Amino acid sequence: MAASTSSLLAPASSSCAAISPRLTRAAPAAASVPSPSRPSYPPLRASSGRPLRSRFVASAAPTMQPPTESRVSTVVDVDLGDRSYPIYICSGLLDEPDLLQRHVHGKRVLVVTNTTVAPLYLEKVTWALTHNNPNVSVESVILPDGEKYKDMDTLMKVFDKAIESRLDRRCTFVALGGGVIGDMCGFAAAAFLRGVNFIQIPTTLMAQVDSSVGGKTGINHPLGKNMIGAFYQPQCVLIDTDTLNTLPDRELASGVAEVVKYGLIRDAPFFEWQEKNMSALLAREPNALAYAIKRSCENKAEVVAQDEKESGLRATLNLGHSFGHAIETGTGYGAWLHGEAVAAGTVMAADMSHRLGWIDESIKKRVVEILEKAKLPIAPPETMTVEKFKNIMAVDKKVADGLLRLILLKGPLGSCFYWRLRQEST
Amino acid sequence: MAASTSSLLAPASSSCAAISPRLTRAAPAAASVPSPSRPSYPPLRASSGRPLRSRFVASAAPTMQPPTESRVSTVVDVDLGDRSYPIYICSGLLDEPDLLQRHVHGKRVLVVTNTTVAPLYLEKVTWALTHNNPNVSVESVILPDGEKYKDMDTLMKVFDKAIESRLDRRCTFVALGGGVIGDMCGFAAAAFLRGVNFIQIPTTLMAQVDSSVGGKTGINHPLGKNMIGAFYQPQCVLIDTDTLNTLPDRELASGVAEVVKYGLIRDAPFFEWQEKNMSALLAREPNALAYAIKRSCENKAEVVAQDEKESGLRATLNLGHSFGHAIETGTGYGAWLHGEAVAAGTVMAADMSHRLGWIDESIKKRVVEILEKAKLPIAPPETMTVEKFKNIMAVDKKVADGLLRLILLKGPLGSCFYWRLRQEST
Repeated sequence: MAASTSSLLAPASSSCAAISPRLTRAAPAAASVPSPSRPSYPPLRASSGRPLRSRFVASAAPTMQPPTESRVSTVVDVDLGDRSYPIYICSGLLDEPDLLQRHVHGKRVLVVTNTTVAPLYLEKVTWALTHNNPNVSVESVILPDGEKYKDMDTLMKVFDKAIESRLDRRCTFVALGGGVIGDMCGFAAAAFLRGVNFIQIPTTLMAQVDSSVGGKTGINHPLGKNMIGAFYQPQCVLIDTDTLNTLPDRELASGVAEVVKYGLIRDAPFFEWQEKNMSALLAREPNALAYAIKRSCENKAEVVAQDEKESGLRATLNLGHSFGHAIETGTGYGAWLHGEAVAAGTVMAADMSHRLGWIDESIKKRVVEILEKAKLPIAPPETMTVEKFKNIMAVDKKVADGLLRLILLKGPLGSCFYWRLRQEST
Repeated sequence: MAASTSSLLAPASSSCAAISPRLTRAAPAAASVPSPSRPSYPPLRASSGRPLRSRFVASAAPTMQPPTESRVSTVVDVDLGDRSYPIYICSGLLDEPDLLQRHVHGKRVLVVTNTTVAPLYLEKVTWALTHNNPNVSVESVILPDGEKYKDMDTLMKVFDKAIESRLDRRCTFVALGGGVIGDMCGFAAAAFLRGVNFIQIPTTLMAQVDSSVGGKTGINHPLGKNMIGAFYQPQCVLIDTDTLNTLPDRELASGVAEVVKYGLIRDAPFFEWQEKNMSALLAREPNALAYAIKRSCENKAEVVAQDEKESGLRATLNLGHSFGHAIETGTGYGAWLHGEAVAAGTVMAADMSHRLGWIDESIKKRVVEILEKAKLPIAPPETMTVEKFKNIMAVDKKVADGLLRLILLKGPLGSCFYWRLRQEST
């Protein structure tokens, strides 16, 4: 008991050593992933058995640390005082029981996953949690897959399972899946017994580059997306890039929409890298993916460290999201993937920015081109009339005291602007 | 806009001055409240136009500041860093619009109340929120009354109303009612748009001395009490002691159970004061009630300041609650009032403490006598068998890693002990 308690209390920052042998081994070949003969992403710094580590504090500027070897192995720290946590990014992390076990609190684990991901990874994660660790018992709850199930009824299934399994305050919830699973599991962890520990194991690109990082959790209401939730940070985020090998193309492209966003709002060199490497990303070239994930997490970690609860800066991460959420709500959750809606919303934001004279036409053109290259939609569906957009956006979270907040582009590439627009009285 | 924003940003601690005229005026006579010719509570320090104010930090010892005048007017500060807030205790506070308005954020307010309290105080609170304050609009949602409605279905009515009313992040929820309303409104405020401001206006003694203070919010699950919730602190707690004039006797006694608890776990002089003044409390003698509320809030504020999230000390506030929660769950929510179940649970804890040889029989006897005097139950219902207690307590939040945590009495009056008891494997 004492031993296991002390191992639980080991600082997260020391856990890196345990995975360093793994972090330096060669990436397994993925049959479906063609490797371009001449990678076009920047040369990367050599991996020397120690993972690259980025730590962000409020004042840190974004950094790029491109390794020169063919493998990217990274720990990105999200610096939030006593709620800080690491993001591990590497292929094969689910084969490393020590890493996962180090972040488990208590002896009882509830894995929350869905009908698509469970057959692929539940057994592996259960093995990683229990290998040489007989004291830990694992329960799981398998939810239906899809944004339309991100609701209170489905959330209650997690509580039902946790309570029926007699889980107590010293348990750990593990989110195994995409953004919907991460958001629901995180909110369940925030609310179960007024808060238990949880770990994010995102298995989609969207979740790996965006939703699993930063502590936004929640569910949808029939009248609006993410209306009910909590800011609640995980113990760690464990990104095994191998899980992307099983991701459908459409889901991969959806995640790319958020990657593009980071470039547009704050990281012009990353956007330019994407323009050169979009084909490699879509072809799932492992190092291109790993670099895009790392750079996205670094950008997000830096923003979240400065503004955890979205009182200002963090809102810039919502580029394209006000329009995008309206598309998701208006078309019914699940008809459009989140990233597809964000892509169309990003074009709308770029178009508005250009009409206002805030960006050159060339930037708007590059936004459209990169999203087209990523096979993402560049316009909302025809069913979304102006009136429909206005009605739905009036109940968006990003409205406050009748002012609609929109993130628009302004100035050179990589710069954005937080625009407040008075809504008509409702 | 600018003016209202700056008034919103005024520190809560300065708001006291606004109510000082009110705080020094004579208490209105309440026809139903007999005033004993010779009060037996301690002589109190003169009120000089400034309210008494207690501020608790982690190292502060409990203090007693008894005024010599016949009126107790108090602000108790709950010191939780950037989540600190004041508790205002006085008769007639709902006649002071300035005080309430000072703590409202934004221009939109949602009052959450129930079918019993709404006819009594909703109009008054709406007046207090809007008097000379035309910019603020007030919505209300009136829930069914009773612990059995403290569930997810009823909680969703609050979200429905908030979303249909297009409330945004800069709104304020106001909990107007007893502990159930405070817990539900607080959790709704914690989860709506991932957190909006809220104010507690408790109208029962139970809520005034216990549940409105300390930030525990939540709802019940069919398998256990308060299984789903959040630690979420209000902007302020506004206790208008006049609201107790409409409280049924049984509800008043229920609140007394928690008052007794503070004496038993940490404040022997307060317990002795209660032994002498129980008749005055039950007869609703205004100063006796005000003193009991103030002393209870001071005790609770001090404990919460030291241990907000119940990692240790705060658990001592659960004396009688493990048994009590089991009674509430086992008999169906609402059959027994919370304080009634806690009273029977407190006798069970005192009995167990005595059997273990930790307290003298005389203390156990005084526990039984004071609760009998308060007309509270001193034994669980016969339907609660040992087996039923064990099954229900196994899923109690206060179980962790199979260890049942019980608060028992140990040593002289006013001392308690946190006892860990291994549960049988389930």
